[in-house]
Amino acid sequence: MNAPSHLLPTLTAIREVMAEHILPLEPDFLNPHLGFRSLLPRLQQVRQHIKDRGLWAPHLPKTYGGMGLTLSEFAHISEELGRSPLGHYAFNCQAPDIGNMELLLAHATDEQKEKYFLPLARGDIRSCFSMTEPEYPGSNPAWLGAVAVKEADTYSISGHKWFTSSADGAAFAVVMAETDPHAEKYRRASMIIVPMDTPGLTLVRNVSVMGHTGEDYATHAEIRYENCRVPLKNLLGPEGEGFALAQERLGPGRIHHCMRWIGISERAFELMCQYAATRQVAPGKLLGEQGAVQGWIAESRAEINAARLLVLHTAEKIDAEGQYAARDDISLIKFYVAGILQRVLDRAIQVHGALGVTDDLPLAYWYRHERAARIYDGPDEVHKASVAKRIFQRYA
Amino acid sequence: MNAPSHLLPTLTAIREVMAEHILPLEPDFLNPHLGFRSLLPRLQQVRQHIKDRGLWAPHLPKTYGGMGLTLSEFAHISEELGRSPLGHYAFNCQAPDIGNMELLLAHATDEQKEKYFLPLARGDIRSCFSMTEPEYPGSNPAWLGAVAVKEADTYSISGHKWFTSSADGAAFAVVMAETDPHAEKYRRASMIIVPMDTPGLTLVRNVSVMGHTGEDYATHAEIRYENCRVPLKNLLGPEGEGFALAQERLGPGRIHHCMRWIGISERAFELMCQYAATRQVAPGKLLGEQGAVQGWIAESRAEINAARLLVLHTAEKIDAEGQYAARDDISLIKFYVAGILQRVLDRAIQVHGALGVTDDLPLAYWYRHERAARIYDGPDEVHKASVAKRIFQRYA
Amino acid sequence: MNAPSHLLPTLTAIREVMAEHILPLEPDFLNPHLGFRSLLPRLQQVRQHIKDRGLWAPHLPKTYGGMGLTLSEFAHISEELGRSPLGHYAFNCQAPDIGNMELLLAHATDEQKEKYFLPLARGDIRSCFSMTEPEYPGSNPAWLGAVAVKEADTYSISGHKWFTSSADGAAFAVVMAETDPHAEKYRRASMIIVPMDTPGLTLVRNVSVMGHTGEDYATHAEIRYENCRVPLKNLLGPEGEGFALAQERLGPGRIHHCMRWIGISERAFELMCQYAATRQVAPGKLLGEQGAVQGWIAESRAEINAARLLVLHTAEKIDAEGQYAARDDISLIKFYVAGILQRVLDRAIQVHGALGVTDDLPLAYWYRHERAARIYDGPDEVHKASVAKRIFQRYA
Amino acid sequence: MNAPSHLLPTLTAIREVMAEHILPLEPDFLNPHLGFRSLLPRLQQVRQHIKDRGLWAPHLPKTYGGMGLTLSEFAHISEELGRSPLGHYAFNCQAPDIGNMELLLAHATDEQKEKYFLPLARGDIRSCFSMTEPEYPGSNPAWLGAVAVKEADTYSISGHKWFTSSADGAAFAVVMAETDPHAEKYRRASMIIVPMDTPGLTLVRNVSVMGHTGEDYATHAEIRYENCRVPLKNLLGPEGEGFALAQERLGPGRIHHCMRWIGISERAFELMCQYAATRQVAPGKLLGEQGAVQGWIAESRAEINAARLLVLHTAEKIDAEGQYAARDDISLIKFYVAGILQRVLDRAIQVHGALGVTDDLPLAYWYRHERAARIYDGPDEVHKASVAKRIFQRYA
Repeated sequence: MNAPSHLLPTLTAIREVMAEHILPLEPDFLNPHLGFRSLLPRLQQVRQHIKDRGLWAPHLPKTYGGMGLTLSEFAHISEELGRSPLGHYAFNCQAPDIGNMELLLAHATDEQKEKYFLPLARGDIRSCFSMTEPEYPGSNPAWLGAVAVKEADTYSISGHKWFTSSADGAAFAVVMAETDPHAEKYRRASMIIVPMDTPGLTLVRNVSVMGHTGEDYATHAEIRYENCRVPLKNLLGPEGEGFALAQERLGPGRIHHCMRWIGISERAFELMCQYAATRQVAPGKLLGEQGAVQGWIAESRAEINAARLLVLHTAEKIDAEGQYAARDDISLIKFYVAGILQRVLDRAIQVHGALGVTDDLPLAYWYRHERAARIYDGPDEVHKASVAKRIFQRYA
Repeated sequence: MNAPSHLLPTLTAIREVMAEHILPLEPDFLNPHLGFRSLLPRLQQVRQHIKDRGLWAPHLPKTYGGMGLTLSEFAHISEELGRSPLGHYAFNCQAPDIGNMELLLAHATDEQKEKYFLPLARGDIRSCFSMTEPEYPGSNPAWLGAVAVKEADTYSISGHKWFTSSADGAAFAVVMAETDPHAEKYRRASMIIVPMDTPGLTLVRNVSVMGHTGEDYATHAEIRYENCRVPLKNLLGPEGEGFALAQERLGPGRIHHCMRWIGISERAFELMCQYAATRQVAPGKLLGEQGAVQGWIAESRAEINAARLLVLHTAEKIDAEGQYAARDDISLIKFYVAGILQRVLDRAIQVHGALGVTDDLPLAYWYRHERAARIYDGPDEVHKASVAKRIFQRYA
Repeated sequence: MNAPSHLLPTLTAIREVMAEHILPLEPDFLNPHLGFRSLLPRLQQVRQHIKDRGLWAPHLPKTYGGMGLTLSEFAHISEELGRSPLGHYAFNCQAPDIGNMELLLAHATDEQKEKYFLPLARGDIRSCFSMTEPEYPGSNPAWLGAVAVKEADTYSISGHKWFTSSADGAAFAVVMAETDPHAEKYRRASMIIVPMDTPGLTLVRNVSVMGHTGEDYATHAEIRYENCRVPLKNLLGPEGEGFALAQERLGPGRIHHCMRWIGISERAFELMCQYAATRQVAPGKLLGEQGAVQGWIAESRAEINAARLLVLHTAEKIDAEGQYAARDDISLIKFYVAGILQRVLDRAIQVHGALGVTDDLPLAYWYRHERAARIYDGPDEVHKASVAKRIFQRYA
Repeated sequence: MNAPSHLLPTLTAIREVMAEHILPLEPDFLNPHLGFRSLLPRLQQVRQHIKDRGLWAPHLPKTYGGMGLTLSEFAHISEELGRSPLGHYAFNCQAPDIGNMELLLAHATDEQKEKYFLPLARGDIRSCFSMTEPEYPGSNPAWLGAVAVKEADTYSISGHKWFTSSADGAAFAVVMAETDPHAEKYRRASMIIVPMDTPGLTLVRNVSVMGHTGEDYATHAEIRYENCRVPLKNLLGPEGEGFALAQERLGPGRIHHCMRWIGISERAFELMCQYAATRQVAPGKLLGEQGAVQGWIAESRAEINAARLLVLHTAEKIDAEGQYAARDDISLIKFYVAGILQRVLDRAIQVHGALGVTDDLPLAYWYRHERAARIYDGPDEVHKASVAKRIFQRYA
C-alpha cells in the first residue's frame, strides 16, 4: 500500500532476500538453545549477498555505501525488513547502530568518522548507546548520574548505565555524561565516544530481559564506568550539547521503530489470517468463521493501515520540514503505533491458541521483546504529556 | 492538515461562512424549545448567501450549480462543514439528500431528473430514502418485507418502513421494495420514486430518537405504504437493481459520514483543549495539568489524524478506481472512524464535567445523535465480518 | 443473586409493584411530548399503593414510616427499583431527597425535623441540594463562590449555583455557602436550609441537559441567590461543618447511585438477551448466534456480577464500620460501576440496532442521562486520584 | 480482605513460609541460566518444612495428609501461594498434579490410588495430563485424534499430544484417547493412566514456550504415543466417560487458576504501588503523582477486589451446590480474571519502565507465562460463547 512506484523494484528485491535468506534463519533465531553468536557466520554471508545486490544500508547516503533514500522512502523498506526479527540487522540498519551512524554522520569530526563511522557503515563493527541509568528515570534524559570530568587532556567518566543495548561485542559506546553540573538544565550533558576496551569500563552483566540475557547483538548491558578515561577529542559534537544531540538522535530513532513495528504487525496479521482461514475448530468449521476472530481481523486491518499512513505522513514531514517541526507527530506515532503493535500481536497469539505462545512462530518473541515498545525511547505517558502541553499552549 | 493548496481559498471562504453564519445559529438549534422549523427562514438566508459566494452544493458538478469537486476534495470541505450540526444542511450536501442526488444523477431518466433532481440540487425541495424496516434487520438489505406489485401501469407498494430520515417535509421518497420475490436473492428489490403526497403513504410518526421526535428535516419517520400507487415510470434504474443501487448509494454515503465525523471530532477536540487549557480546578491549577486529561488530548489527536488520513486515502482510491475497488476501505473507515468519534466525544464531555452534558455546547447533541454512527449504514459488526471474510478468501 | 432469604418476600412484593404499576408508566415517561408533571397524579396513586403495602421509603427507620433496612439490605431493594427510571421516585427514595433525608435525620434540630424532614419522609414535599457552581469545579467542593453573611439574626446568601437537581417544584434547598472565608480550607462552608420561596432566590432556568430542560422533579436548575435571607436557625449542623456534612451526605449518596446502576444494568442486560435470543438477522438465523453479541452478553454478565458483589461488600462494610472506613471502597465502586453501566448500556443499544436509539425502550434514556454517572458526585478521575494517593501513603 | 477469621492463623503461617522460604528462591527461579532442576534440592527442604508445619497439600483431605479445606477456604490459601511462581509447587497443590489428585481421589480404583494417588499426595512423584493435540483444537475436547484400541488385556494407545505440561520428570500421564469412535460425540473418549516409562511413549521435545523449553516441572511436552500398551485396569473411571471426567477435572482446575491469578495480581499491585510511591521522576517529584499512574492503581484495586469477590462467590457455590451448578460462574471468572491479570501485569510493567521488562522482578515472567491464561483450559471466546448460549436458552 502506498509505496511510490520507483521503489517497487527495490521492494521486490528486498522481499526476495527476506524470503530466501532471512526467513530461513528464523527458526534458529527463535531456538532458545542457540545463541545469537551462532548465527553470525550465516548472517555474515547474507550481509555480503545484500551488499552484492546493492541493497545495503538503505538509510545511508550512496557515498557511504548506502541506498541514499529519503526517510519516507526508507519507511517502506524498513517495514519490509521489520517482518522478521533479523531483517534490519541483515541490512545494517539495526538499532542502535543506525542511530549512531546518523549521529556520527552529522556531528563526528573527520577523524571520528574515519575511526568509528566508516567501519560501522561497512558493517565491520558494531556500537552501542549508553544513556539510560538504573537510578535515574530514562524518561527524563536531563537528569543524569554519570559525570565526565576533564583531567588533563582526557575526560574521566564515572557512572552506572544499563539498557546499553548491544554493548556485548560492540567496538565502542556513545556515552552520555554530565560535563557541567552548573550549566542550565539542558546544557549539562555531553556525548563522548568510548571504545569498549577502555580501562574503567566494565560490562557488569547482560541484563536478563523477558527471560533471556542474550549474547552479542541481542543484549542489554549493565555497564559501570569508573574513572574511565578517553581523550578530549572523543567528545562528539560540542560540549554541553548532549541533550540536544540525544533529542536529535531519538527523533528519527522513534520513527525507525514505528516503521519496523508496522512490518511486525503486518507479519502477525498475515499469520493470523492464514491460521484463521485454514484451521478447523470442528469438522468443516473454520476458526475464521467466529465473530470474535473476524472482529480482530478487521480491527487490525484498520489499525495497521492507519498506523502506516500516520508514519508515512510523519516521515514526509520530516523530509520536508525537519524533525523539530515534526516532533509532535513523532510523539504521536511513538505511542500510537506501539499500542497497535501490542494489540495486533495479542490478537494474533489468541487466534493461534496454544501454538501462539510457542516459539514455533515469531509471535511470542515479539510479544516478549516488543512489550518494551511502549517504554523505550520514552514511555507512552511521557509522549502524551509533552504533546498535550504543546497543544495547550495554543489555547491558553 | 493535508489539504491541497488549490483548495485553501475555498476552505477559507467556508470557514468564514461557518463562523459568521452557521455557528451563530447553533444555540437555537440546540435549544429544545425551538423546533427545526423555526430555523428555516434564517437557514434560507444563509443558503442564499452561500449560493452567492459560489460555495453551494460542493459535491455537485458545476453544470448543476455545484462546485465540481472530486470526492477527495470534497472530503476537506465536508470536514469543515461537519464542525457544526447545521453545516451540511446549509451547503445543501446533507444526508439523505446528497445520496439521493448522486443516485438520481447516475440513474434518473431525463424526466425524473427534471422533476426530482434539479429542484433538489437547487435546494427547493427535500427528499428521503425509505429502506429500513422495523420487522427486518437493516443490516441485511436483501431481506425486505415491502413489496411493489405491478398493476396496470402502476406499482402498488405495500410495506412498513422506519428510520426514513427527513421524511417530514420531504417532497418525495426513494422507496426500496421487492418487485420479484422469485428472483435471485440480490435481484428481488427495486427502487421507486414516491411523492410524499401519494395516497396510501402514511407518515405514522416521527420516531422518538434519543429523547426527541424532532420536526421537518430533523426527523426519522415511521411510514406505512398501503396499496400506494405510482406510475411505472417512477422506477429508478432497472427493475431488480434495487440492491445494487443501494450498495452504490451507501458506499459514498458511508464515506460522507466519515468526513463529517472528522469535522465533529475536530470541533470536540478544540472545545476540549480550550476548556482544559483555561479551566481552573483549584486556584492556579489548570484542568489540563492532569495526566488523565493530557492522555485524552494526545490520544484524540493521534486518532483524529489517523482517521483523516484513512478517509482521504479511501476517497482518493474511490476517485481513482471506483467505490467497488474501495469497498473494504469503506467498511474499515465506517467502523473505525465511528469508534474514534464516539471516544473523542466521550472524552470531551468528561473534560467539561457537568457542562459537557448540557446543551450549552454541541457535545451532548452529538453524543446523543451520533451514537447511531456505529449502527446506521451497517453496524460495526457487519462491516467487520464482511471485510474479514473477503480477507480470508486470499488465504484459504 | 446473593439476597439474604429474609428479604425475599419483600423483593417479591417490590417486583410485583414494579411490574404492575411502574413499568406501565414508562412509555409515558419516555414520551418527549409528555412532561414529568403530567405523570404526577398517577405516581401519587402508585405511591399510596406502595405505602399501603408497607414498602414505602425502604431506607428510613420504621419510626418515620420506612422499612428500617440496613444499607446492605437496601442495596437489594434499590437494585430492583433501579430497573425503571421511576422506581426510586415511586418508593420515595429518590435522589436528591434521599440524601437530604439522611442529612436531616442525622443533623436537623427538632424544629427542622418537624418542618422539613417529616413532610419529606411522608412524600408530601420535595427538596434539592444546592452545592455545585458553574464558575467553580464541582470536583473541588472546598472551593466555593457562594457566601452566607450573618446580618442580625439572618444569613444573607449570595451565590450562583447550577445542577441543583429537582429544584423545580421543591419546597426547600439545602444550600452550601461559605460562612467563614478565613477558616481552615475544609471549615469555611456551612449548610443552610433555604425555602424555595425565599426572596432573593431566583430559579434562572432548568438547564437543558442532553436535549431536555425537563420539568418538576426531572430537572437540573440554575439558581441565583442574591442577598437571600433566612433565619440563623436554618443552619443545618454546626457552622463551618458544611464540607464535612457534604462528605457525609455524598458517601451514601454514591453507593445509592451504584445500587441503582446495577438495576439499570440488569434491565439493559435482560433487554439485550431477550432481543438477541429472538431477533432474526436472516431467515432462521438469530442475532444471538453472532460471536460479537455472545461476547457482549458474557462480558456484561461477568461485569454486573462483579459490580454487585463489590457494592454489597461496600454496603456491608459501611453497615459494620461506618462510611469513613469504607471511603476507598466507595470511591472504587463509584467509578467502577459507572464504567460498567456505560458499557452495558452501550452494548445493549448496539445489539438492538436502530431500535436501541429510539425511545420505544428505556435504553436511550439511560444512555443520555447516565452519561453523567461518570461525572456527578465526583468524576472518575477525582475518585481514582484520591484512592491512589491514600494507597501510596502505605508504601511511602 | 474477606478471609474468615478461623483461617487467619493459617494464612499468617503461610505468609511466613512464603517470606522466609519461597521468596528467597525467586531470584534463582527467574535466572535464565539456572534450570528448574537446580532448585529441586532446596524446594525439597522447603516442602519438608511445610509438612512439618502442617501446611502441606491444603486442598487434600486430612486423611491423605492435607489440610481438609473447602474450596472457598482453599481460595484464600491459593491466593497467598500465587504471590510467587513457586508457591503452589512448594505446598504440593500445583497444576497439573492438583487436578490429577482430585481426579484420582474421585475415580481411581483402590489399586490406582495406592500406586498413583498416594505418592502424588505425598509429593514423592509428579504427574501430567495428556489431552491437548497439535492437530486438533484444544477448545473442542470432544474432537480428538488419539485412539486407545483394546488388544487382549491392554489398551494400545496411539496419538500425538502437546502441552502435556510437566511431563518431563513425571511418573505417569493421564491420557485422553478415543476408545469408541462410534459412540455418541461426548462418550467416545476415555482416560487412561500411562506410566511415563511405558514403551511406545516418546517425549519428543519440551516445546519452547515464550522463549524457553524449560526442564522438569517447568515444561510443556510434545509426546508421541505409538502402540503404547497399558493394562486395561489402567482405565480411569468408566470407559467412554473421558469427556465427562475432563469437564469434571477442568471446572475446579479453572477456579484454581483464578485463585492463583489473584495472588499474582496482588503481588504485581504491591510492586507497582511500592515503586510509584518511592521512585522519583524528577528531583522531589514522585512517579505516583502522575495522573496516569494513579488511574492504573485505582483501576487495578477495583478490578482485583471484584475478581476476588467473584472467585470466592463461585467457590462458595461449588462448595454448596457442586461444580455443575456453577459452570457458568466458572466460565465467567475464567475469562474475567484472566483479563484482569493481564491488565494488572501490563500496568505494573509500564509503571516500572525498563525495570519492568527485566527479570530482576517476577513481572516479566508472569507477563510471558500467563499470556496463556486467556488460552489454557478454554480460550476466552469459548467460555463467552458457552455462557451466552446457556443464557439465551432462558429467553428463547
